[in-house]
Amino acid sequence: MKPSSSPSEVLLRGLSGAVDVDAELDDSHLLQALLDAEAALARAGADAGLLPGPVADEIARHCHADRYDPAALGTAADAAGNPVVPLVRDLTAAVAPPARAWVHHGATSQDILDSALALVVARAAVPLLRHLDAATDAAVGLARAHRDTVMVARTLGQQAAPTTFGLKAAGWLLGLHDARTRLAQARTALPAQLGGAVGTLAGYGPSGLVVADRFAAHLGLAAGPLPWHTRRQPVLDLAAALGGLLAATGKVALDVGLLAQTEVGEVAEGGPGRGGSSAMPHKRNPVDSVLVTAAARRGPGLVGTLFAAAGQEHERATGGWHAEWEPLLDLLHLAGGAAARTARMLGNLRVHPQRMRANLDATGGLLLAEAVAARLAPALGRAAAHDLVARAATAASFRDALLADPDVRAHLSVADVDAALDPAGWLGSAATLVDRALDSYERGTG
Amino acid sequence: MKPSSSPSEVLLRGLSGAVDVDAELDDSHLLQALLDAEAALARAGADAGLLPGPVADEIARHCHADRYDPAALGTAADAAGNPVVPLVRDLTAAVAPPARAWVHHGATSQDILDSALALVVARAAVPLLRHLDAATDAAVGLARAHRDTVMVARTLGQQAAPTTFGLKAAGWLLGLHDARTRLAQARTALPAQLGGAVGTLAGYGPSGLVVADRFAAHLGLAAGPLPWHTRRQPVLDLAAALGGLLAATGKVALDVGLLAQTEVGEVAEGGPGRGGSSAMPHKRNPVDSVLVTAAARRGPGLVGTLFAAAGQEHERATGGWHAEWEPLLDLLHLAGGAAARTARMLGNLRVHPQRMRANLDATGGLLLAEAVAARLAPALGRAAAHDLVARAATAASFRDALLADPDVRAHLSVADVDAALDPAGWLGSAATLVDRALDSYERGTG
Amino acid sequence: MKPSSSPSEVLLRGLSGAVDVDAELDDSHLLQALLDAEAALARAGADAGLLPGPVADEIARHCHADRYDPAALGTAADAAGNPVVPLVRDLTAAVAPPARAWVHHGATSQDILDSALALVVARAAVPLLRHLDAATDAAVGLARAHRDTVMVARTLGQQAAPTTFGLKAAGWLLGLHDARTRLAQARTALPAQLGGAVGTLAGYGPSGLVVADRFAAHLGLAAGPLPWHTRRQPVLDLAAALGGLLAATGKVALDVGLLAQTEVGEVAEGGPGRGGSSAMPHKRNPVDSVLVTAAARRGPGLVGTLFAAAGQEHERATGGWHAEWEPLLDLLHLAGGAAARTARMLGNLRVHPQRMRANLDATGGLLLAEAVAARLAPALGRAAAHDLVARAATAASFRDALLADPDVRAHLSVADVDAALDPAGWLGSAATLVDRALDSYERGTG
Amino acid sequence: MKPSSSPSEVLLRGLSGAVDVDAELDDSHLLQALLDAEAALARAGADAGLLPGPVADEIARHCHADRYDPAALGTAADAAGNPVVPLVRDLTAAVAPPARAWVHHGATSQDILDSALALVVARAAVPLLRHLDAATDAAVGLARAHRDTVMVARTLGQQAAPTTFGLKAAGWLLGLHDARTRLAQARTALPAQLGGAVGTLAGYGPSGLVVADRFAAHLGLAAGPLPWHTRRQPVLDLAAALGGLLAATGKVALDVGLLAQTEVGEVAEGGPGRGGSSAMPHKRNPVDSVLVTAAARRGPGLVGTLFAAAGQEHERATGGWHAEWEPLLDLLHLAGGAAARTARMLGNLRVHPQRMRANLDATGGLLLAEAVAARLAPALGRAAAHDLVARAATAASFRDALLADPDVRAHLSVADVDAALDPAGWLGSAATLVDRALDSYERGTG
Repeated sequence: MKPSSSPSEVLLRGLSGAVDVDAELDDSHLLQALLDAEAALARAGADAGLLPGPVADEIARHCHADRYDPAALGTAADAAGNPVVPLVRDLTAAVAPPARAWVHHGATSQDILDSALALVVARAAVPLLRHLDAATDAAVGLARAHRDTVMVARTLGQQAAPTTFGLKAAGWLLGLHDARTRLAQARTALPAQLGGAVGTLAGYGPSGLVVADRFAAHLGLAAGPLPWHTRRQPVLDLAAALGGLLAATGKVALDVGLLAQTEVGEVAEGGPGRGGSSAMPHKRNPVDSVLVTAAARRGPGLVGTLFAAAGQEHERATGGWHAEWEPLLDLLHLAGGAAARTARMLGNLRVHPQRMRANLDATGGLLLAEAVAARLAPALGRAAAHDLVARAATAASFRDALLADPDVRAHLSVADVDAALDPAGWLGSAATLVDRALDSYERGTG
Repeated sequence: MKPSSSPSEVLLRGLSGAVDVDAELDDSHLLQALLDAEAALARAGADAGLLPGPVADEIARHCHADRYDPAALGTAADAAGNPVVPLVRDLTAAVAPPARAWVHHGATSQDILDSALALVVARAAVPLLRHLDAATDAAVGLARAHRDTVMVARTLGQQAAPTTFGLKAAGWLLGLHDARTRLAQARTALPAQLGGAVGTLAGYGPSGLVVADRFAAHLGLAAGPLPWHTRRQPVLDLAAALGGLLAATGKVALDVGLLAQTEVGEVAEGGPGRGGSSAMPHKRNPVDSVLVTAAARRGPGLVGTLFAAAGQEHERATGGWHAEWEPLLDLLHLAGGAAARTARMLGNLRVHPQRMRANLDATGGLLLAEAVAARLAPALGRAAAHDLVARAATAASFRDALLADPDVRAHLSVADVDAALDPAGWLGSAATLVDRALDSYERGTG
Repeated sequence: MKPSSSPSEVLLRGLSGAVDVDAELDDSHLLQALLDAEAALARAGADAGLLPGPVADEIARHCHADRYDPAALGTAADAAGNPVVPLVRDLTAAVAPPARAWVHHGATSQDILDSALALVVARAAVPLLRHLDAATDAAVGLARAHRDTVMVARTLGQQAAPTTFGLKAAGWLLGLHDARTRLAQARTALPAQLGGAVGTLAGYGPSGLVVADRFAAHLGLAAGPLPWHTRRQPVLDLAAALGGLLAATGKVALDVGLLAQTEVGEVAEGGPGRGGSSAMPHKRNPVDSVLVTAAARRGPGLVGTLFAAAGQEHERATGGWHAEWEPLLDLLHLAGGAAARTARMLGNLRVHPQRMRANLDATGGLLLAEAVAARLAPALGRAAAHDLVARAATAASFRDALLADPDVRAHLSVADVDAALDPAGWLGSAATLVDRALDSYERGTG
Repeated sequence: MKPSSSPSEVLLRGLSGAVDVDAELDDSHLLQALLDAEAALARAGADAGLLPGPVADEIARHCHADRYDPAALGTAADAAGNPVVPLVRDLTAAVAPPARAWVHHGATSQDILDSALALVVARAAVPLLRHLDAATDAAVGLARAHRDTVMVARTLGQQAAPTTFGLKAAGWLLGLHDARTRLAQARTALPAQLGGAVGTLAGYGPSGLVVADRFAAHLGLAAGPLPWHTRRQPVLDLAAALGGLLAATGKVALDVGLLAQTEVGEVAEGGPGRGGSSAMPHKRNPVDSVLVTAAARRGPGLVGTLFAAAGQEHERATGGWHAEWEPLLDLLHLAGGAAARTARMLGNLRVHPQRMRANLDATGGLLLAEAVAARLAPALGRAAAHDLVARAATAASFRDALLADPDVRAHLSVADVDAALDPAGWLGSAATLVDRALDSYERGTG
């Protein structure tokens, strides 16, 4: 059984991923990370005085991905159950004979692969967080620019009351920022893995903890108190953070897609040459919204898979660990695509305040029913005010019905009624909330 | 944004997939399936008299994957949201001018991509079912060879009572066969997709149904009553079948892994050069069991993703459809690897009847406690017999305690007790059940 | 540790379930099903001549749920890990002494609980399928009544081209009918479970198969070839069928919710006194759509859980089996609520053809762009026609732009253009497809 | 449609939950939390000067769950889509007329229900964290008591090398402690929800932020920067924390179950009267391990459901929100049961050091192969040492084969070989790692 070219390397995957993030996830980068772990292991051993410095140098000198054949390693991996076994064999053969005894010294395959995956995460997080920052910046821009742009708020799919587009964008901003915080934190906390065959660091005699700590330092990863071969909280933290990112970007995409519906038309995706339809020349599809929504739909299953894989027994697990590798890379891939497309979508977003206003007015003031009821409640009581307004809301003209109602006119003038029916007068704390969100974001990133 | 090389094309994916199944899933095969769908569309149009036969020939003549660049198509797909739009552009440019008006005639991207994915499934199912047949054959062989090989049955992880290895293998057999039946059925039922932009077949005038039925016939796929753009039961049937296959193979792998534990040692994986450990020279890891277990752990998340993606609105969906593509290919990939490895694992399985016997004897007859209680129950009553046996089970020697008990001796001779303590005498219908399973399997495949 | 009152027995659960289906799932019905299994076991033993008929009668006489205390059983279950152990104890104590030895004869707890859950499924399926039939009938009614009601089809959230509401309803119908077919099939195929402690039927001597087959017959369940203690395909079939039902109803609810948006307004949920808002007196929320959508969102996770639970080892499993009980009942509960609410939602649906027509006209004929391009393609070529129409589509008036274009006028008269812009002329096979779907449904249920 | 009794209130749910945690989740406690939110709302309004203090007192005076009928509220909830609407109606009717206008003032149903669920979480977390602390304490005790108890470490199901039971328990300890940290953090961060109909706090005029902050203060919940009606990160944090708790306890249960296998026998569950089998009088099932494993299997699907539900559109969502309620309560329920059972399982655990030692010796020193290879590697080179040891490992006696090998004898004396074959000499940093874990835990909780 040989490894094979994977499904859809280029035809479909670009639609769910981003080029720069995906580049960090490919075979050559994963292979380099594996070799970086082997080099760090040799150096850590030398730091602890277990092997001569020049031996570590010799090993490190051969830790370059372009010297090894991923396809051959993949093929050979089948017999061992992981690619580290054949890689160690090749690396051992490559170094000068005196160094051979020290290649992979005291380590187990999982030490190298877990540490390499942590490196891959740390490296992929760089472009990923950059996309997320761009998306957040765009949300900041929209929140500021539209702090006072009045639009319809919708609940359960129904027009409900006025809000501002700025407040909507401020909500997006906080969602994206929460995702960023959690991802950055999970990435920073990712520990190097070194325990040896069964997690006792037995191969290093009394120097085990020194080697483990130096190993982590060489890789720029955190040093955990214990090996975590079958204690997978670091993977779960990462899964939750990436799943949260997909949820946050998915929420933005969902809103954009719904606001871009033909009948709503309050925003449109911009950008040149995007969204043409093969069958309908007049259509402009909200392609980024669609693709981010698709990525977000795939998050929960992968998050669930990583939580399910965390049931790992004994000192190293029978399948649970192996089940993590591709889903973790898939989550990074999807998060990259979702972040990049959200940045592009928000950066190019066309906002149509006139259409927002038109939609506000489409129901003839019904959206202000709560405002009217609130003005009447002190005088009539909440229930009576509610009933009166509900009655008026069924009339052909809400305003006319209100003005014709003696109970209304006993308490409100025409000007009062018109004031109550002005959306801009029923925005509550919207503007302050936008300011508060921007402030909270700026403090959080300061 | 360009498509990118995917994560781990060769370094990891071979560990979860099988070469021949994966080959059917790669870009070139998916691209060919897309082109097969375009060619079938042209031929169906010609069959219906909408376009001249030579035009259909001209289009079909250009429907060869090696004429198109998957990477370029993947890149261009980003603007449209799917790879069919740029492929149609390229195909249109390739054909002679008179044929251009008829390329992709009356179809929408989803018609082509859904039909192509159905083709890919049908083609990948050939090697996949072959692996499953090999696994089933191996299970048949084990059930026959070990019809009367006595071993310990275990419940809740505890030794419970005797059974036969043949009955265990017969259970594996039925599980694998059920999976095969469901997969073959879901594959056969997979319909071609043709509805045009919104599912009305509007581009074909009154010939819509003829074109749709001819299209399905050219592709060798089923013809559904209606387009199924947002009615995804065919995808769910496939997801359930592939998920069931992963569960059935996962159950076999789980059993093999547990029986291969050092302390149990009743089976071992065979095959040359497999299962070496990088750190422990003496170990032989049950690698196929581990990798099948890993694949099985990833099934439920992907099945869940496809069920979640099935919530597709209106005439064509905003993301739900796009979310299906890669998870469906991933499920096929995992099912291929699991089926191939299960076939290898069972085909090479080393069975150790002596170790099975030794494990049976390890608890000094305690496993036959139910047998003893059953012999005493008619005389003593079920509860009293149960209590008596439970008491004897706490003694140093179960047999001695039984023989020393006057209530036992009042009803059973020494020979009776020894007969009750013979595992071969407490197998119930095991052998008949094996025969019944083999018979049921043979009738099911006859 | 005592069992406790469960979360939200009445405050929330009614919002996700249906009264009549839930009634079949409650403690008293589950307890009765457990006792029905014990009674059937005794009768099967009598049929096989293992115990006297009057003993079976005596046991069956005590198999009434109202004689046992579910709370006490639940408390006692904690020590044994399942409720069958204490129930057998209580039942044994209840029957006349000569019958005591024969209570639960030869069975294991899982035999009784699996068979009881199969009974519960079969019984709950009666009201569940009735709700599904009502939903399907309502969809049939809508498809017939609106076979020719023209409306906008929407793809990727954008208005795309004309279709009919009848065709949309026909798609709902087929989705619901597919779900019904699968559920009915999975229910009919549900086997009784009888294997004894380890699946060998050892307690019945040579009569094992007779007892097992009679047991199934008494329960009205299928008789499988082998016990299926750790071969869970029947549970997976059921999970997939219930998950499919949730997906099918969820798709209907999603469509209704989107069509009921204030800005679309093409349908509304009917029914007296439903959908009021606590804060907004004018709003009518599409409550059934919302609650069915919520139920549908919960399906995939539960389906995934049942597929994950299917990894069951050895002869009876360590947790996998126990993980199935509540998720299976939860899926039935959600399916019941979704089916009942979909029936109510479709039965009361208010359809607004005028609003459909207004939405069709809102883009000034742009939806017919494909129709116009199709008319021009034979003369201009597909690409040129597409480009011309795309250009015209950006003008203030699409019709005016077309009529002003010399290339158009060279081939189409004003009447031709107006005919092309008539939605009713671009419905393709919509009406025939509706007829085909109705016909397919009637044949499928005939 | 009326709400119904839920599936399995007492017969099954006790097996997955814990009494004290479940008590916080039942209808009466949820109802009280809803009323606590209404009372806090009134007091917050009074604090802001919007309504008189005595009015707030009057409202709060009626906010006692025992005055309302959960079943009637559940029934009435069906028309509104949530139970807050009828509760507000009943509460309004209960208070003195002057207070009626101020009941639920300015709030929307989701404000009350989200805040109430946050309260329920906070309250249920008290017993839940107490169970988790008990489990952690038990793990500390085991780690200390067995710091130097040598046992076999197992990787991929195979005996691999020596470790200590203390190190295994230290790993459990860190896993449980990580879960505790995350849960405590997610609970503390849970914000109150107050936004009014569409998140603008419109009903409070300029006092919105004051009311919102006072509302949170009265409830003892965090005050977020913005309402989070459709920004669900707090729910995701909680889902991840509870899922992590299930994974951590599930890992412990998995280990215990495997160590308790008859053939391994290194630990057993203690406690009186637990684990009897209905069919096999001699068996003692590891019931807590089984039930915790079952709970852990159900975590990932529910975590996935909550991540999927987080895709919530606009200002309040169509189903996504409603899909959260029961899965969140279910996760709390399962986490409670898993924590309580893990505490009991570890608190009563019977550890068998002699059996651990016997298992270590069962392979005649093969487990020390790595130790021997390590001693030979400096002289022979790693590869040659590995090969030599692998050869010796296939002999009948590993020790004899080593002593008979001239390459071994050239470098090692008999005493050297015996020292290499002593498990206690190949524990690496095990003891130090235990100390480090205990220290890390104590600092983390100090």
